[in-house]
Amino acid sequence: MSVDPRLSINQATIKYADLATALRVTVEAGVPAIGLWREPVADVGLATASRMLTDSGLRFTTHCRGGFFTLPEGPARRASIDDNRVAIDEAATLAAAGAAGSTAILVLVAGGLPEGSRDLVGARERVRDAIGELAPHAAAAGVTLAIEPLHPMYATDRCVVSTLGQALDIAADFEPAVVGVTVDTFHIFWDPDVEASIARAGREGRIATYQVCDWKTPLPADVLLGRHYPGDGVIDLGALTRAVSETGYDRDIEVEIFNEQVWATDPLVAVQRTAAAFGGAVSPHLSAPLESRS
Amino acid sequence: MSVDPRLSINQATIKYADLATALRVTVEAGVPAIGLWREPVADVGLATASRMLTDSGLRFTTHCRGGFFTLPEGPARRASIDDNRVAIDEAATLAAAGAAGSTAILVLVAGGLPEGSRDLVGARERVRDAIGELAPHAAAAGVTLAIEPLHPMYATDRCVVSTLGQALDIAADFEPAVVGVTVDTFHIFWDPDVEASIARAGREGRIATYQVCDWKTPLPADVLLGRHYPGDGVIDLGALTRAVSETGYDRDIEVEIFNEQVWATDPLVAVQRTAAAFGGAVSPHLSAPLESRS
Repeated sequence: MSVDPRLSINQATIKYADLATALRVTVEAGVPAIGLWREPVADVGLATASRMLTDSGLRFTTHCRGGFFTLPEGPARRASIDDNRVAIDEAATLAAAGAAGSTAILVLVAGGLPEGSRDLVGARERVRDAIGELAPHAAAAGVTLAIEPLHPMYATDRCVVSTLGQALDIAADFEPAVVGVTVDTFHIFWDPDVEASIARAGREGRIATYQVCDWKTPLPADVLLGRHYPGDGVIDLGALTRAVSETGYDRDIEVEIFNEQVWATDPLVAVQRTAAAFGGAVSPHLSAPLESRS
Repeated sequence: MSVDPRLSINQATIKYADLATALRVTVEAGVPAIGLWREPVADVGLATASRMLTDSGLRFTTHCRGGFFTLPEGPARRASIDDNRVAIDEAATLAAAGAAGSTAILVLVAGGLPEGSRDLVGARERVRDAIGELAPHAAAAGVTLAIEPLHPMYATDRCVVSTLGQALDIAADFEPAVVGVTVDTFHIFWDPDVEASIARAGREGRIATYQVCDWKTPLPADVLLGRHYPGDGVIDLGALTRAVSETGYDRDIEVEIFNEQVWATDPLVAVQRTAAAFGGAVSPHLSAPLESRS
């Protein structure tokens, strides 16, 4: 079975692989692109990571992740903003090191309520403020900040941005090339407005990256780890993928799975299974590439 | 400490108490109202339950619960619709048996995806259809059907109605006296539109019942059981209670807690703790009753 030419493996899917292994198994499985995480890049250093990425011949799709913007003003907030500037620079460097078609995207997870706070409204405002501070740096670096709405079950401890519509409302203050959104099926499929919000995201030029994985119940004890190979759960990936395709989105599509069983799998096998699952559940719903349309 | 005169104990908070015990401890704690569940009522029979309720002197606030409307047409769907007609009649009977100020409300939980289905859109349409079938019976019985949006983490296995706005869109096809919504803090607090949706619910005359409990993380292994006494978590109950009060809602307010530790508590103690928690976290944010306003 051939691998979809738009598939990208998000490194979180093979969390326990170091960067060298992640790049090697992705190439070996015939997958053409990869999204990286900051920690394994930092383990070898950015310069080395960039050389390894270039040598792999893979496209680079996203850098995961920045954000955590909900703290009130003070040294911890300043440290977070500064660290996000570093992450922006990393994303630019890695995108330049990747094969042609790489994209300079930094995925942003907003952060949860600060300890002792119940003020979601205020936390959400501080997310907007932080993005405002970072936007000039991102623009100068040619990096798109991709606000990721996370499922509402993470609203208080991880990400106060809970819907695609809310992410788009924040992004609306900025240029689409600088601030976009991450459309991840796991986080938004439940939303009664999901198809309308995807269409809006496309219309407003905000879909920085499209990520797929699946949902099923019961959720595991750690609800962060309840993600599955595409097609193994109950998300209507066909409908969502068609909705994204219809906006004209024609770039790579990441699969990002947080799942202890997937992580316990040999990483090459996990990537091969991901490619097969993607081919079955996502590829049939993608528009043909522009150049092949009649 | 005096008990808030608008507090109602939802029987799920003391799940392992039979009806006699639930009524007794509610009275003993000085709480003036109770919301009942169908199963403990059925255990003694409706006629006996009604007499027991009358004898308790408590107001009756809601009957929990009807719904489960997502099956496609067939015998199982027919059985569910028929059972909801029975539940409507039970709600009317119990409301008539309760003290003055009782309300004939049947809480509806929509149901999840049918086995093997990924079609949330279709499931949601079937919920609307079922309510359309039941509305004439509810109107004749003088019962309000209260559609309850459940937290999106339950969207696929329990309730395809996930936001207050979505519940209001369904209710909009019907008379407000016949179809309203359940506003439960646990399920909707995360919604960026929550205050606007509460205001809309009030404007459209749809707030059938207001229920409070709290949320905190990490969630327990069974995510159904992660509810807490008001004030023990991170929900801004003050803001939500003020938003509900500002709509003019002046009826009883239920506390419904699904929590193994609360269930393991002596039921009288659990009710007393609920009353104290309510007094601390909710009562200060309630408008004064109309008759005491200048």
